[in-house]
Amino acid sequence: MKLLKNAALKALISGALFTVASTPLIASESPITPAQKETAQQLMVTALKSELGFSIVESLTTEIGPRLGGSEAEKRARDWGAKLGKELGFDKVAIEEFTMPFWDRGHLHIALTSPYNQELYGSALGGAAPSDKEINAPIVYFRDIHALTAIKDGSLEGKVAFVDGEPMVKSQTGAGYSPSNQKRRIGWQHAERGGASALVIRSVGSDSHRFPHTGMMSKNGDKWANIPVIAISNPDADHLRRLHNLNKPLAISLHSGSDWKGEVTSGNVVLDIIGSEKPEEIILIGGHLDSWDLGTGAVDDGAGVAITTAAAKLIANLPKRPKRTIRVVMFGAEEVGLLGAFAYAKKHEANLHNHVLATESDFGARNIWRLVSNVNPEATKLVDEIAKIIAPLGIVRGGSDVKGGGPDIIPLDNKGVPTIRLSQEGTDYFDLHHTPDDTLDKINPDELAQNVAAYAATIYLFADTNVDLKAKR
Amino acid sequence: MKLLKNAALKALISGALFTVASTPLIASESPITPAQKETAQQLMVTALKSELGFSIVESLTTEIGPRLGGSEAEKRARDWGAKLGKELGFDKVAIEEFTMPFWDRGHLHIALTSPYNQELYGSALGGAAPSDKEINAPIVYFRDIHALTAIKDGSLEGKVAFVDGEPMVKSQTGAGYSPSNQKRRIGWQHAERGGASALVIRSVGSDSHRFPHTGMMSKNGDKWANIPVIAISNPDADHLRRLHNLNKPLAISLHSGSDWKGEVTSGNVVLDIIGSEKPEEIILIGGHLDSWDLGTGAVDDGAGVAITTAAAKLIANLPKRPKRTIRVVMFGAEEVGLLGAFAYAKKHEANLHNHVLATESDFGARNIWRLVSNVNPEATKLVDEIAKIIAPLGIVRGGSDVKGGGPDIIPLDNKGVPTIRLSQEGTDYFDLHHTPDDTLDKINPDELAQNVAAYAATIYLFADTNVDLKAKR
Ligand SMILES: [Zn+2]
Ligand SMILES: [Zn+2]
Repeated sequence: MKLLKNAALKALISGALFTVASTPLIASESPITPAQKETAQQLMVTALKSELGFSIVESLTTEIGPRLGGSEAEKRARDWGAKLGKELGFDKVAIEEFTMPFWDRGHLHIALTSPYNQELYGSALGGAAPSDKEINAPIVYFRDIHALTAIKDGSLEGKVAFVDGEPMVKSQTGAGYSPSNQKRRIGWQHAERGGASALVIRSVGSDSHRFPHTGMMSKNGDKWANIPVIAISNPDADHLRRLHNLNKPLAISLHSGSDWKGEVTSGNVVLDIIGSEKPEEIILIGGHLDSWDLGTGAVDDGAGVAITTAAAKLIANLPKRPKRTIRVVMFGAEEVGLLGAFAYAKKHEANLHNHVLATESDFGARNIWRLVSNVNPEATKLVDEIAKIIAPLGIVRGGSDVKGGGPDIIPLDNKGVPTIRLSQEGTDYFDLHHTPDDTLDKINPDELAQNVAAYAATIYLFADTNVDLKAKR
Repeated sequence: MKLLKNAALKALISGALFTVASTPLIASESPITPAQKETAQQLMVTALKSELGFSIVESLTTEIGPRLGGSEAEKRARDWGAKLGKELGFDKVAIEEFTMPFWDRGHLHIALTSPYNQELYGSALGGAAPSDKEINAPIVYFRDIHALTAIKDGSLEGKVAFVDGEPMVKSQTGAGYSPSNQKRRIGWQHAERGGASALVIRSVGSDSHRFPHTGMMSKNGDKWANIPVIAISNPDADHLRRLHNLNKPLAISLHSGSDWKGEVTSGNVVLDIIGSEKPEEIILIGGHLDSWDLGTGAVDDGAGVAITTAAAKLIANLPKRPKRTIRVVMFGAEEVGLLGAFAYAKKHEANLHNHVLATESDFGARNIWRLVSNVNPEATKLVDEIAKIIAPLGIVRGGSDVKGGGPDIIPLDNKGVPTIRLSQEGTDYFDLHHTPDDTLDKINPDELAQNVAAYAATIYLFADTNVDLKAKR
């Protein structure tokens, strides 16, 4: 990956940068001044050489480790985030606490007992109920979620339902996730309706490793599942499928301690670089500080926290603060239901009109390849010009009416806050997503630096412009 | 991989095969007749199109699953192997039992407890003792096995030793395994000498996934370890290393149920294609039927069982049996100390002079790229000629004085049985080796078919020749 880094650096330094430096004549209608453009380009050069981003995610994953929303580890992560903000010289550092119900995984044992004994690699899904005692039951096989939703009420009494399905389709956008995820989201409602003792699903993930992918189920109204719900790895699901196709009688033994443990405290960490001219106008960037508990949350989403914090710090290192305030939010409890995101939107409700742009990095740390936006149509030209400036990083301009700045931005988006997104290459993302294998070694420092470069240049330009990003809605 | 298959097929059919068919004039000194050569080439064409090899490893891994040496599952695997031999029409099918001490993994829990609580992904090593009760102790970090071997007696009382080391070097020959494996083999002796409560090592494996690699320790004389010995995954070891480098106080909680469970029965499955002219002369091929218990033993060594059985069956499908007997041995209890191999050599001791060649497939199922040999020097020309015939499969001729036909061939090699080896491309082999991730999805059916093609042609030619392979030793 040194190649990419060097190639990008070379393009920036010998091409675009010096061309601009020696060509002060810019088409008069550009919303970006030559000086702003040069600053953005210098930020990219600096970011590509900087190890700050990687050192942040290394510190978070090493010194804190896994940090489930609401856990004691997540509390340590907040303290880590606030300390980091102070050390990096952010102008304002705050921890904004909120309360939430805590779900704990407990211990799981799951094994095939017929046609023979074999351990399965599984993980409880978020929100699942415990088994009172060990469940020993035959498996009823469903080829996909549609087959399960078609069952009659009460037809699964004394059984464990297993929902298979194709492994999710891999793509750079992660488009296969949402359809594949239905069995994780709503499968439990139908298994319960059928009277099943438990539900087992094929993991929602694009890999073929022996790792289960955990993740939150959806509530049904305000009700969570009353049965254990377990995801098993893709190779384990393949194994059950092959045995089913051989007409072998399948049975399972399962004991899960996952359960709700009452109200606890979580929180968001908020770090500000105060704007020099319009300090009240906020450009919000960030990632989520919590992770699932199986891995150390490097890719999801230590990377996002690191990329956005490092980008803001590089902007703060400039001789002068940009006009607008840049706010880094390390959201708490994202994985367990965007709880930090909703808490933030509620707490800052009266001030959301001053949030002029929001975006989150929560799709890993592979190279950013695209910039999409959903801003005031009159501001679209600014985004187009920013896209040209970051193009030497290999980034193309995507749609100008693409809603969504990341999961934790949903509540802000709903309230009319303009959004952009810098899209990471996501082909491998769902190989690691929510597995024990989401660890630091999966991050390429050079690719992470490309992310920091893209964020630093882009966010600087949005923060230093006078262009109104917000449509009158 | 269809490309490879098609390319190989095309080369065989349109190139070598028809050239030979239409050119009956062969240099007179060749030890291989034109008819033999054509038969070998037809075997390759047939094998590349055949799904037999894959169907065998699919059946073994699916219908039997993991099959630890000495376990009930390994007994089922023997019955499966004998049934398969009968179904495929082998001339003679036998199960040759032997007794062995049984080591059982039991349940393991291992977690970091300082600087914070975090589950570790670990696995007991074969031969390790149980912990009487939960061990809670500080970790003493050793950067490699040499650092551990240098300790003073009694200096680790009340501590758990952790031996780090670099992840093993990846290569097609697997040359990095043996040096990396020292900590697994002999680490326990030094940890015990130091008085440590347990030994934890970085897994011997070339991957960066959250899987521990199990494997057998070495005995010290006739003594096994008296302490628990656990391998943790490479990412977990990286994690401990980073914490150690930050001078964090490391401590661990560990409870392992692994123990010796007394004498049990294992066995080898022996399948013969009886030779038509020299039935007493045996060409022995095979793989090992047992696997480690964490995965389903697809790559190690369901593949070897499948490749050699399928190759023998394709030879048996010829209109006429080759001159010599082809014997497929599915060795039992390889992983736990080559117990089946030694049992075979002992049982057949009086007849080993009739074993004219032996080889094992036990290095996965990626493409075979090389043929090495250790036969009577006067027979080396025959091997050279065979190498030319299988060259269209992408296989090169390696050394003619390379000892070793595979782990289970060691006792035969020691008694003077000539050996060859068809070397699989092994760069990825130690990513999967002895992990839970050794499952069927890791085998590419086209690459497995290339293996069957190489074995079928090679073994046919050795079985149908009159050349004496055995040196007078
Ligand atoms: Zn995330
Ligand atoms: Zn093996």
